[in-house]
Amino acid sequence: MPSFGRTLREIPPSPLVTVERLLRSGAHEAPVGLQQGRTVFEPCARPRAWERAEFGISAHEHAPPGGVPALRRAFAEAATARRGTRVDPEQVLVTSGATHAIAVVLHAVLRPGDEVLVLSPQWLFATGLVWAAGGVPREVPVFLELSRDPGFDFTAAIERAVGPRTRAIYFNNPNNPTGFRLDEPALTRLAELAERHDLWLIADNAYENYDFSDGGFIDMATVGTAAERTFSVHSCSKTYAMPGTRAGHLISPPGSEEVLTKWSLHTLYSVSTAAQFTAFEALATPAAELAARRERAAHAWALADEALEIPHTAVAGGLYTFVDLRAYGDGEEFVRRCARAGVGLAPGRVFGEHCADWARICFTAAAPRSVVEAIGRVNTIYREGKGER
Amino acid sequence: MPSFGRTLREIPPSPLVTVERLLRSGAHEAPVGLQQGRTVFEPCARPRAWERAEFGISAHEHAPPGGVPALRRAFAEAATARRGTRVDPEQVLVTSGATHAIAVVLHAVLRPGDEVLVLSPQWLFATGLVWAAGGVPREVPVFLELSRDPGFDFTAAIERAVGPRTRAIYFNNPNNPTGFRLDEPALTRLAELAERHDLWLIADNAYENYDFSDGGFIDMATVGTAAERTFSVHSCSKTYAMPGTRAGHLISPPGSEEVLTKWSLHTLYSVSTAAQFTAFEALATPAAELAARRERAAHAWALADEALEIPHTAVAGGLYTFVDLRAYGDGEEFVRRCARAGVGLAPGRVFGEHCADWARICFTAAAPRSVVEAIGRVNTIYREGKGER
Repeated sequence: MPSFGRTLREIPPSPLVTVERLLRSGAHEAPVGLQQGRTVFEPCARPRAWERAEFGISAHEHAPPGGVPALRRAFAEAATARRGTRVDPEQVLVTSGATHAIAVVLHAVLRPGDEVLVLSPQWLFATGLVWAAGGVPREVPVFLELSRDPGFDFTAAIERAVGPRTRAIYFNNPNNPTGFRLDEPALTRLAELAERHDLWLIADNAYENYDFSDGGFIDMATVGTAAERTFSVHSCSKTYAMPGTRAGHLISPPGSEEVLTKWSLHTLYSVSTAAQFTAFEALATPAAELAARRERAAHAWALADEALEIPHTAVAGGLYTFVDLRAYGDGEEFVRRCARAGVGLAPGRVFGEHCADWARICFTAAAPRSVVEAIGRVNTIYREGKGER
Repeated sequence: MPSFGRTLREIPPSPLVTVERLLRSGAHEAPVGLQQGRTVFEPCARPRAWERAEFGISAHEHAPPGGVPALRRAFAEAATARRGTRVDPEQVLVTSGATHAIAVVLHAVLRPGDEVLVLSPQWLFATGLVWAAGGVPREVPVFLELSRDPGFDFTAAIERAVGPRTRAIYFNNPNNPTGFRLDEPALTRLAELAERHDLWLIADNAYENYDFSDGGFIDMATVGTAAERTFSVHSCSKTYAMPGTRAGHLISPPGSEEVLTKWSLHTLYSVSTAAQFTAFEALATPAAELAARRERAAHAWALADEALEIPHTAVAGGLYTFVDLRAYGDGEEFVRRCARAGVGLAPGRVFGEHCADWARICFTAAAPRSVVEAIGRVNTIYREGKGER
């Protein structure tokens, strides 16, 4: 696997761990931990009561920086089932949402000025996260090209963007905002390219539950030998419809635990214990229920696709389509006009430098009837605007 | 006020905000927001039900990156009452605990290689947070000196450590691990020094509820003109005994909101909505209850002080005392020996490079009787070890 960038070697491991280990080693029958700041005081507010036995920790108690062990085990078991190869709980880092997972990875792998290739258009905070970690994002337009022409040689485009400072490739599959999905042959070529240049792969799997294709979601870590260089980012926000919970997780190649946990600790110490319990409960959602949600999203897409009179990307997965406003002319103005008509669209340029004349539509943002009605208004604005030109 | 370091100017402000504003401006009677990824799906797990009206947002919904408005207002009101001058909700950033608040500030003010003076001994993650933000921590030993001699000229010691790259001073008051408290004249001298060198002040107020002195807790932002250069870090962990909640907040000089929110967003998007609600509930804790907890901690300190046969710092506030093991000789070995005897102490060196022969005791970590009994064991180990030498 590639090497880490800023490993925080300036920060020594905590000797408190040694104290804890000695205390637990059973040398004394009645240990008293005066080493930490834990108090016997009752919490002033309890986010939720649950049986301590079930989760091993109460809501007001500090979780360990890597995550509550019961939740790490549960995520590792789910990943083992999905991948078909064993994922160890030590490979799992519980994070404060997928955003935090990506931030931790970027901080850990980048030295100042290192570059990250961002397959574009991309999730709107991806490039900002690279800047914040001291790196430089390089957008590589591939998804609109692939949407138009599935034969487009996207790895050649990526290859041209690789430079001496390139350290990682970030991609979101199924892709937000286009709904395009890289299939197994495509992911294989991407993995080979990463191996050729010894790059990390940051696979953002936020929309894993909404892959409408027959084969279903493909975990990058199951493709060839990609697991040794892949950071898999998982979110509860979309899969379980609870973005306010802020509980995501990261699955990393073995041997990454220490540096990633250190980075996570030095951004927020640990993830909210109640948020981790909520994720733990959500993990018990029956597969049939998750499949029903996927069906519902696919149905919403079919309705939106039928209603839209503007050229737009074909959605293989995710909750969005990207509409092509080049014939209209001014994408930003179009978005403002829609907003004044009571329909919110996301302007294309937040998803990529080359996307100013595009806009994103979330087709599950409202009940299907409302979405179709809103698309009707959008069509009218498009038709009238195009006529004006 | 001093200037910011890395302001993330590479990241443009979001045009989604413009869309939202236009949608809300009331131009249309039935707006439909298709611009974001919010879905109509029900959450798979609910951390806690509460009336939406009370807090303006449900548990599974994304909070705004700056924090839930109701909570920012509540924190601003509390700060206004404490300071006696108006604090605007825009000055409040809700963070994932005090750790995250400090990380955000450090990222925002430091350019790579800039220095932060850390008044030492210090909270054990303070120097690591500076490294993680790309800065260089410089420990300035002051609290043990002040504990021995209240007349110690601590600002002269700080003054000697100021260099061309110094950007900020971090301090924790009342101090963890010594229990020393900088009083108003001391804080005034510190503020004057910061103004003289145009430095930021990062005031870590984690133990604000446990100031046992007659005057009580002093908010650095109320001292002279310090408010214009002070980042006040507040925690729910100690005040409300709920470290697992991970809801802290930062109060900053006016005009800092944009850059700080951007940094926070690019570490974790937003703080868990349920955690914010828990903090909102905790804020309603009666002042008498908080005073009772302070009394209880002061009582625990009195018992520990009486029981300890090892030289230790006099505690004016906080939940710890720092024991002096120089006569014993090997502080690390002492801590290991205590752990084997079932008593956890925190080894001194995590609190400062010059503290290897010290150890920290948390006197509220267990019921008073257990703490006193544990201190008895610690005394025995000290006595015997000293006798061996």
